Amino acid sequence: MFVVAEKEIAGLMTPEAAFEAIEAVFASMARRKAYNFPVVREAIGHEDALYGFKGGFDASALVLGLKAGGYWPNNQKHGLINHQSTVFLFDPDTGRVSAAIGGNLLTALRTAAASAVSIKYLAPKGARVLGMIGAGHQSAFQMRAAANVHRFEKVIGWNPHPEMLGRLAETAADLGLPFEAVELDRLGAEADVIISITSAFSPLLMNEHVKGPTHIAAMGTDTKGKQELDPALVARARVFTDEVAQSVSIGECQHAIAAGLIREDQVGELGAVVAGDDPGRADAEVTLFDGTGVGLQDLAVAQKVLEIAKQKGLAHEVEI
Amino acid sequence: MFVVAEKEIAGLMTPEAAFEAIEAVFASMARRKAYNFPVVREAIGHEDALYGFKGGFDASALVLGLKAGGYWPNNQKHGLINHQSTVFLFDPDTGRVSAAIGGNLLTALRTAAASAVSIKYLAPKGARVLGMIGAGHQSAFQMRAAANVHRFEKVIGWNPHPEMLGRLAETAADLGLPFEAVELDRLGAEADVIISITSAFSPLLMNEHVKGPTHIAAMGTDTKGKQELDPALVARARVFTDEVAQSVSIGECQHAIAAGLIREDQVGELGAVVAGDDPGRADAEVTLFDGTGVGLQDLAVAQKVLEIAKQKGLAHEVEI
Repeated sequence: MFVVAEKEIAGLMTPEAAFEAIEAVFASMARRKAYNFPVVREAIGHEDALYGFKGGFDASALVLGLKAGGYWPNNQKHGLINHQSTVFLFDPDTGRVSAAIGGNLLTALRTAAASAVSIKYLAPKGARVLGMIGAGHQSAFQMRAAANVHRFEKVIGWNPHPEMLGRLAETAADLGLPFEAVELDRLGAEADVIISITSAFSPLLMNEHVKGPTHIAAMGTDTKGKQELDPALVARARVFTDEVAQSVSIGECQHAIAAGLIREDQVGELGAVVAGDDPGRADAEVTLFDGTGVGLQDLAVAQKVLEIAKQKGLAHEVEI
Repeated sequence: MFVVAEKEIAGLMTPEAAFEAIEAVFASMARRKAYNFPVVREAIGHEDALYGFKGGFDASALVLGLKAGGYWPNNQKHGLINHQSTVFLFDPDTGRVSAAIGGNLLTALRTAAASAVSIKYLAPKGARVLGMIGAGHQSAFQMRAAANVHRFEKVIGWNPHPEMLGRLAETAADLGLPFEAVELDRLGAEADVIISITSAFSPLLMNEHVKGPTHIAAMGTDTKGKQELDPALVARARVFTDEVAQSVSIGECQHAIAAGLIREDQVGELGAVVAGDDPGRADAEVTLFDGTGVGLQDLAVAQKVLEIAKQKGLAHEVEI
């Protein structure tokens, strides 16, 4: 078994490598060469923790395994971040474990890579302004991945807690981009691409905010009850997702589906656009990527980092 | 993270240590201090493999994690056994992975320990004859664990393929016990304790075979459709199991339940007997333990072997 330590990931993994891995696995999913297993998610009744497993198998890349871990809200007292996870890869030919890989940074990178893939395939032509809704830990990864896949000229941003907007300003500065804090109506009107990455439980971006050709990557909603977008905005958009079953049950689409504004068969797969089986934006004014997060994304970036770590001699081999 | 290699397990783990671990976790389960997560089990469409995860949390022992792996029927060509699994333990205070432990031998030991616990608590007084139904790989582990918990005077055995009975004869000889191959009617009539460990899909041991005070540990049925016992025999017995939900759906009780011969509320928990909350055998002539196998058993023996490995300096620590 190879072990790649969490502290090595930052030096090994690039947004480009994460992008490639996610682009490929989305295409495999859409072509039914890769599928996710049922998700296990348990409130264990200890430390208010949520713990579980997201597994899957990619038959084209021959990647099998799971991410295990979860959310430990009191981890600050241990000097640790609240999201803790580890990816385990298995040899699909024999069932033997082949790797254990720190999954914390990888989770942020794969989530950012998913919205970046959606931007590559769905952003309106000539998009210049990136709008960021949310300024938490993940927002910087999102902005970096977006800037890596598309040449933006400006970033505008909004956050429910304005005092956190410094993170967006600093990240934009680091990318050589001007940044401006704006209200949501201006953000919706001016941004060509919008990434929302919050933990909101009621709509922030309203249908009337969004004007002109726009792509929205809604990355925050991954649980029943969470919501970032006006369902009328979802209904107006051409909608794509990573996994339809998750999108309509725990993703942003849950609300538009529940309200009867869209049907499940109107939710397309981003992977089908990548694979060339879906025209994508076509003549739509607004496109939406509902990013819910699937186990195969974790496995894809873990496999990629394992390959890089092996090349660089940073995968520690241990007998098991 | 500590790593305990598969090849070390045999030298570290004893039937006694496995017995203690399983006895304790069954009691925790019955007292609702420990619970199993939903099982993930997938036919991955590659090498005819079945792959999945069995997880759980024991809040009294503070053991959290999962067993991952499965059944790879073509492993002989790789010089490997078909059942391959690995146990991963997590720190329930932080969510960080704490151990990776080879799970192949542990699976056999925990299954054998479960029937041994049932024998300790449910065997009729003065039991002398052990009856073995099945002579596959697991049967030797079963016999050793049973002999370890109760002083039998003789072993009798039956197997659908009589040419395999040598394994039972050799194991009995190794334990200093006489062995005799018998037909099922004699086995049912003469044995005081019966362990069935086959992959049968139709009843082998019939109600009329079993005479006098008898305890039966039915360890083979862990899937829909499998069956070792006459449902009338199940209906006649006082029935205990590791987990009621599994017993009535994928365990031996599935058939008696489906036939309307018993109700789910008649299936007791072996852990409740261990915990002193259920009288166990009481005045019953026949008792049955329906052993279906749960993730908490895997975690319990893995935690035990990890403690022993740490004491002996055989747990390899690796940064992750």
